[in-house]
Amino acid sequence: MGEPSNTPASRDLAAYAAELAQRARSASRTLATALGAQKDAWLRAVADALVQRASAICEANATDLAAATELRLTGVMLDRLKLTPDRLRAAATGLREVAALPDPIGRVRDSSVRPNGLQVLKVGVPLGVIFFIYESRPNVTVDAAGLCIKSGNAILLRGGKEALHSNRILCTVLRDGLVQAGLPRDAVQLVETADREAVGHLLRLDQLIDLVIPRGGESLIHRVAAEARMPVLKHYKGNCHVYVDRAADVDMAERIVVNAKCQRPSVCNAAESLLIHRDIADTLLPQLAAALLQQGVELRGCERTRAIVPAARPASEDDYAAEYLDLILSVKVVDNLEDAIVHINRYGSQHTEAIITGDLAAARRFTAAVDSSAVLVNASTRFNDGYELGLGAEIGISTDKFHARGPCGLTELTSYKYIVYGDGQVRE
Amino acid sequence: MGEPSNTPASRDLAAYAAELAQRARSASRTLATALGAQKDAWLRAVADALVQRASAICEANATDLAAATELRLTGVMLDRLKLTPDRLRAAATGLREVAALPDPIGRVRDSSVRPNGLQVLKVGVPLGVIFFIYESRPNVTVDAAGLCIKSGNAILLRGGKEALHSNRILCTVLRDGLVQAGLPRDAVQLVETADREAVGHLLRLDQLIDLVIPRGGESLIHRVAAEARMPVLKHYKGNCHVYVDRAADVDMAERIVVNAKCQRPSVCNAAESLLIHRDIADTLLPQLAAALLQQGVELRGCERTRAIVPAARPASEDDYAAEYLDLILSVKVVDNLEDAIVHINRYGSQHTEAIITGDLAAARRFTAAVDSSAVLVNASTRFNDGYELGLGAEIGISTDKFHARGPCGLTELTSYKYIVYGDGQVRE
Repeated sequence: MGEPSNTPASRDLAAYAAELAQRARSASRTLATALGAQKDAWLRAVADALVQRASAICEANATDLAAATELRLTGVMLDRLKLTPDRLRAAATGLREVAALPDPIGRVRDSSVRPNGLQVLKVGVPLGVIFFIYESRPNVTVDAAGLCIKSGNAILLRGGKEALHSNRILCTVLRDGLVQAGLPRDAVQLVETADREAVGHLLRLDQLIDLVIPRGGESLIHRVAAEARMPVLKHYKGNCHVYVDRAADVDMAERIVVNAKCQRPSVCNAAESLLIHRDIADTLLPQLAAALLQQGVELRGCERTRAIVPAARPASEDDYAAEYLDLILSVKVVDNLEDAIVHINRYGSQHTEAIITGDLAAARRFTAAVDSSAVLVNASTRFNDGYELGLGAEIGISTDKFHARGPCGLTELTSYKYIVYGDGQVRE
Repeated sequence: MGEPSNTPASRDLAAYAAELAQRARSASRTLATALGAQKDAWLRAVADALVQRASAICEANATDLAAATELRLTGVMLDRLKLTPDRLRAAATGLREVAALPDPIGRVRDSSVRPNGLQVLKVGVPLGVIFFIYESRPNVTVDAAGLCIKSGNAILLRGGKEALHSNRILCTVLRDGLVQAGLPRDAVQLVETADREAVGHLLRLDQLIDLVIPRGGESLIHRVAAEARMPVLKHYKGNCHVYVDRAADVDMAERIVVNAKCQRPSVCNAAESLLIHRDIADTLLPQLAAALLQQGVELRGCERTRAIVPAARPASEDDYAAEYLDLILSVKVVDNLEDAIVHINRYGSQHTEAIITGDLAAARRFTAAVDSSAVLVNASTRFNDGYELGLGAEIGISTDKFHARGPCGLTELTSYKYIVYGDGQVRE
């Protein structure tokens, strides 16, 4: 492995963290008032450079892949780590799409004129400095930096150590592009030490870092949330439910349940649990189970489910709380809509839930009472996604309620200030 | 003094805190889907009760006042603690005004229809449970509860121990009103122990409490921010600046500076520091100083200020960072607009700043580059206030950037969720 010689292993980690954060803060002040044209020029220049420098990037990535193979990372993890010219082209396309989005900075979100003639504008501003902590996928380096710079924020990147060589060359591309666009190079910085203590130091610098976004396993996120002195934008997990109401269209229910579970089972907005009204269970469950079993889904059900679908294994309490991220589905027959709501608010993760119903009152009650970032009526849970909801690229999906909820794109990476124009008004 | 017998002094404080929070969480679920009519009926019923039960309330308040006199609280503190029929009437009027505001819950904040026909609604929802920690003024009990319940949130109230008897009877009024309106009584609860440890326990319950709002001295707020595991809505202090640009109207500058400093010096949006462009200092400073000295303001200036205004005392570094909340003003002559911006971003508290200028470019640059919750052009800093900006009653002014910035009213006490209506859409 061998740490590269320029890592600060021998330096004081606290001082290293403070210096990184101070540079980021300083860069963020310049970036806050940069023109949209500069930021978009940077996005397009980096997009071009990713394609032009693809072979050098893939070479650095090969070093990471070789080390990862020695470390016996699993096939899935190796695949996540791997960069190819195709994946770099996809990242470049993503950056060009972000460039095409409107600039959230300076945009008037709301306004009013007061009786005394004061004109009140509520205007988008950057948050400042964002600390982004993520696991192995190196293309996330590019995606995250693109969103942060476009929203006027400096970013500190802390990727997995297994992706260090890949992240280092990607960061060079990102930073070279900043200089080229007349923007401060330190608006993008890589945390270049494998020492986890450096992260701990950074998480204490709430005067210099405005937000931390951890993306990865639940234990990483818990650790960051416990240690951070600044706000954290996060989601722990997606235990998403589909509730099939008594008044559901049977074929629609089958189509949506299969899509929500099977279209991409490894992602956070895939369904993990099926609730079904008892009045429709006898007719619908056999059809649903057949369709799911055909897709290779393992069913784990309550007793009433198993009486109808003998192929289902018994579900435990843990099953109802589980985020499988796999072709497994917990199933429960409920007595009514209210029981479904109580179950979801108890076992769910406030991420994404769907109801299948033709009953207006049921739809209204479900959407009002289910406390999740997205609640869908007659549509797949898979639509809780920045692109699909029309918000553009996202940096993550928040299951918190503070600041941002659901998909977090450019707007969610900003704050606002009030700008007030007068002509001499004073307060009486 | 004598703790009343029903306080939990002898009980396990951790269990007491958990029980309070659990009751609040449970009440918040019911409150989240309550009708606006119920919440408004409650506000009006409490307003009536405050007036009807004024003598009982003032009697309880007299107990607190007597104890406070024994504790030798200052005259200002005694005045803050005091409730009178007039003050109760003012609190009642405040509640009626909140009742007249639109309900933020269920309001569609944004919407779109996707190309596949999905209708995406971004809808206001309550945060859940709010823990409000404040110092002696008991009428704040009523104001805070009014805003929290109207925005669908349960509230835990932790007032100063010197106001315990007053807060207890006010809470009874608030809770009786809830039952009367068909709302859960535990949507308002008082933390009834003088033991500060109880606060510590509550600040760890991030699964049950969604937000903590500390209002009081800087040390209280620092303690809460350091201990809380849930988000904190706060402002530390208001070191507000008025910058008089070279292109200022002289009389307007005088009117605004005097108003910003003197109209109510004890509040957070009063000006604490005056910056003045060197090209206008010679003519304007003598006029400004005369007007301020006439109002009894003590001036503390830089050397260039003192060369023009001999009455000014020398200003130290500490003066430029100070929130006086008193008739004192620090003064500095700056070389240009950029120096004013750098000074403000260095010494300011990101609360409120104003520029006086007739120069459009200066106004645009100042409003873009000054990083404060409100930036005013040709108007007094005193306008950074929920009512004055047209946002309605406020629970505080945030100097943070995350979630809410500036005056925090009903909208800032809410979150949102995405509600998506489809007719069978699945993801390809």
